[in-house]
Amino acid sequence: MINLPETGQERIVIVGGGFAGLKLARKLRNSGYQVVLLDKNNFHQFQPLFYQVAMAGLEPSSIVFPFRKLFQGRKDVFFRIVEVREVDRPNKQLHTNVGIVNYDHLVLAMGADTNFFGNEAIAEHAIPMKSVSEALFLRNRILADLELALMERDAGERQKLMDMVIVGGGPTGVEVAGALAEMRKYVLPKDYPELNAEEMDIFLLEGLDQLLAGMSEASGKQAREYLEGLGVVVKLNTMVTGYDGETVQTQSGDAFKAYKLIWAAGIRGNALPGLPEEALRRGNRLQVDRHFRLEGAEHIYAIGDLAYMEEPDYPEGHPQVAQVALQHADYLSRWFRKDGQLEPFHYKDKGSMATIGRSKAVVDLPRLHFRGFFAWIVGLFVHLFQLIGAKNKVFVFINWVWNYLFYDQSLRLIIRAKEPKKKETKVPV
Amino acid sequence: MINLPETGQERIVIVGGGFAGLKLARKLRNSGYQVVLLDKNNFHQFQPLFYQVAMAGLEPSSIVFPFRKLFQGRKDVFFRIVEVREVDRPNKQLHTNVGIVNYDHLVLAMGADTNFFGNEAIAEHAIPMKSVSEALFLRNRILADLELALMERDAGERQKLMDMVIVGGGPTGVEVAGALAEMRKYVLPKDYPELNAEEMDIFLLEGLDQLLAGMSEASGKQAREYLEGLGVVVKLNTMVTGYDGETVQTQSGDAFKAYKLIWAAGIRGNALPGLPEEALRRGNRLQVDRHFRLEGAEHIYAIGDLAYMEEPDYPEGHPQVAQVALQHADYLSRWFRKDGQLEPFHYKDKGSMATIGRSKAVVDLPRLHFRGFFAWIVGLFVHLFQLIGAKNKVFVFINWVWNYLFYDQSLRLIIRAKEPKKKETKVPV
Repeated sequence: MINLPETGQERIVIVGGGFAGLKLARKLRNSGYQVVLLDKNNFHQFQPLFYQVAMAGLEPSSIVFPFRKLFQGRKDVFFRIVEVREVDRPNKQLHTNVGIVNYDHLVLAMGADTNFFGNEAIAEHAIPMKSVSEALFLRNRILADLELALMERDAGERQKLMDMVIVGGGPTGVEVAGALAEMRKYVLPKDYPELNAEEMDIFLLEGLDQLLAGMSEASGKQAREYLEGLGVVVKLNTMVTGYDGETVQTQSGDAFKAYKLIWAAGIRGNALPGLPEEALRRGNRLQVDRHFRLEGAEHIYAIGDLAYMEEPDYPEGHPQVAQVALQHADYLSRWFRKDGQLEPFHYKDKGSMATIGRSKAVVDLPRLHFRGFFAWIVGLFVHLFQLIGAKNKVFVFINWVWNYLFYDQSLRLIIRAKEPKKKETKVPV
Repeated sequence: MINLPETGQERIVIVGGGFAGLKLARKLRNSGYQVVLLDKNNFHQFQPLFYQVAMAGLEPSSIVFPFRKLFQGRKDVFFRIVEVREVDRPNKQLHTNVGIVNYDHLVLAMGADTNFFGNEAIAEHAIPMKSVSEALFLRNRILADLELALMERDAGERQKLMDMVIVGGGPTGVEVAGALAEMRKYVLPKDYPELNAEEMDIFLLEGLDQLLAGMSEASGKQAREYLEGLGVVVKLNTMVTGYDGETVQTQSGDAFKAYKLIWAAGIRGNALPGLPEEALRRGNRLQVDRHFRLEGAEHIYAIGDLAYMEEPDYPEGHPQVAQVALQHADYLSRWFRKDGQLEPFHYKDKGSMATIGRSKAVVDLPRLHFRGFFAWIVGLFVHLFQLIGAKNKVFVFINWVWNYLFYDQSLRLIIRAKEPKKKETKVPV
């Protein structure tokens, strides 16, 4: 049993400190419940800016925030760094890598991870982008491969080290492709004058017939125009069927060669063993009612990317984005505070956007689409204000201004935490 | 053979981009030579502030700087990220993990690494502090162990997770001990109110009878007073003879228990296979003459921590510190520019210092010792001005002011670059 204070309060255990879980924990301060937040990391991650970490525009530390600092001085919110392994519903317990945690109410907010749709070969060789650690790995990999390309005398080999294939034309794929194209344009010629930037090809492959399928058609077209203007080769209606670390296979028989493939083609809910089978829906999401109660289980709720709620306006569930997660959390906190006396949840779309590059973005508001420099500025500020932590805001802002003025960033570092000869720790470091 | 331009210029190959190697490369710009800088990382590391990275006061990115940015636009300086494996003197070649590099002149500036004095058990279990990666590992380890301590119900086990033994009373050991004691005082009670900060013991073990043996006796005594004031248990005349990951053995028979032992008790020159055996001196340093020419080899030089030069004022060689390395590099650049027409090198000591904690530092100038708040401010600014990169200076300065004002830092993150299932890269990422 994990050491947790027994205060006599009912305990709400929240698994996962993403947008949904963290917001819920914060909203439940002083609610009369004891709140226990569990996460495998000790920090909240700001997913919308992962692509800037991957492209060395921002440091990981600027877009993540330690949970403990958020709950300093609280006597009703507790954070524990554990990996949850199983739900034991009859005993109302969670099994973790460290020990057992009891719950009175359990909120599942583990979000979603990369979906390789069962393709083992792709899962083994592709680079995902669903955590700041993965974004950092991608950055290290891009830089390390450029260094190798520089020393390589064989043109074909050099090409494979420089080229990059991005699979998935959603916001992540589009933003990574845009940022990479800008890196090729502004950074590569300065840092790697010995490489020919034109040798570097950037492919963006999308299975559907438009980019940014979750947004308006106009925005999808505009994004494509922006990307092609930056020299990205955009291939629509292109399903990737295999990747062996070198050759990308597609359904149509086209093949692309590159040592790096970024997989942003789908996500899959992080469900847990011990949950009712009948609640599982497409994409491994968990069916909940309009109050986020998990189908077939008591005292268990799911919110955020993991939750699948059908409502009249969204018969196929809500989009899996930050905004939805925040509204879910907000609703559920009120639900707990009002002992379940609340109208069914209804999602209100406030708009969506994607940033393609320097001064280029698309924004869809419910009644208005716009794009270009103004959209880009709006995008920057929306992200800036959503970031947690005053110092994070300051540092990200300085970084952006600096990069904008000097067309340049100084974070192109390949750093990793080095293990001593033998590692002797229970928590991965 | 690694791809490098053949310009007809004589080629100086510098191995290692620390204080000595990087300064030499920069000073040799426009010298008429082709300069090739080799390092296993793509960045220069500012070693004097490693301890602040380890204690989560600064981000790694603030104290390292990418080599490529320093040489942007240069046509006579080339950087390559390689690990050098051997010197082939007859053919004037270096063997590396990527291929062969030819040299006309070879400058060895690989510095020094942690010296475990042949004790395999200590090498296996102790945590060294000689690179930013190791500092980052230590940070992650401290934070992860605190998280585990929090969940631990057994008092003895909890103690071992919290306690820390630091071996070596030089600047690194003293600075780490001081920073850790401050963390216990200011951060622990806020972030981990469930832990009893007093349960955490910090031991500093030193084999000699004073701390900071390279500085004045007065400074050593003052440092000890400062540390004891912060609650560090300082043990002089204490030789550590073994560590199994849990129990620290000493020559006198005292034993300390802790899951973390930081080893800052000595360094060892990073020599290479293929160098003349007769040049090797104590601590694996390489004997050079007063012009840095390696004994028993032609066209090979050694500078910085790796070099062992006897001169009348320093019959046992120079101290292995940044200041010496910088003066070595400065001299050797002039030596190349003047085709060897230069008086023998003479080291001029400009002073030394150590920072023990908030407002506490000791400074030794050639004719003056001082300490306290003013010494601390001097220490901060000396480091700030030595840092490379305007943005690094700005970010470090903001961090310091922030931490000073709020007794608090927000960088307590356990982040590492995550590898995909299988890593497929030649350069470690």
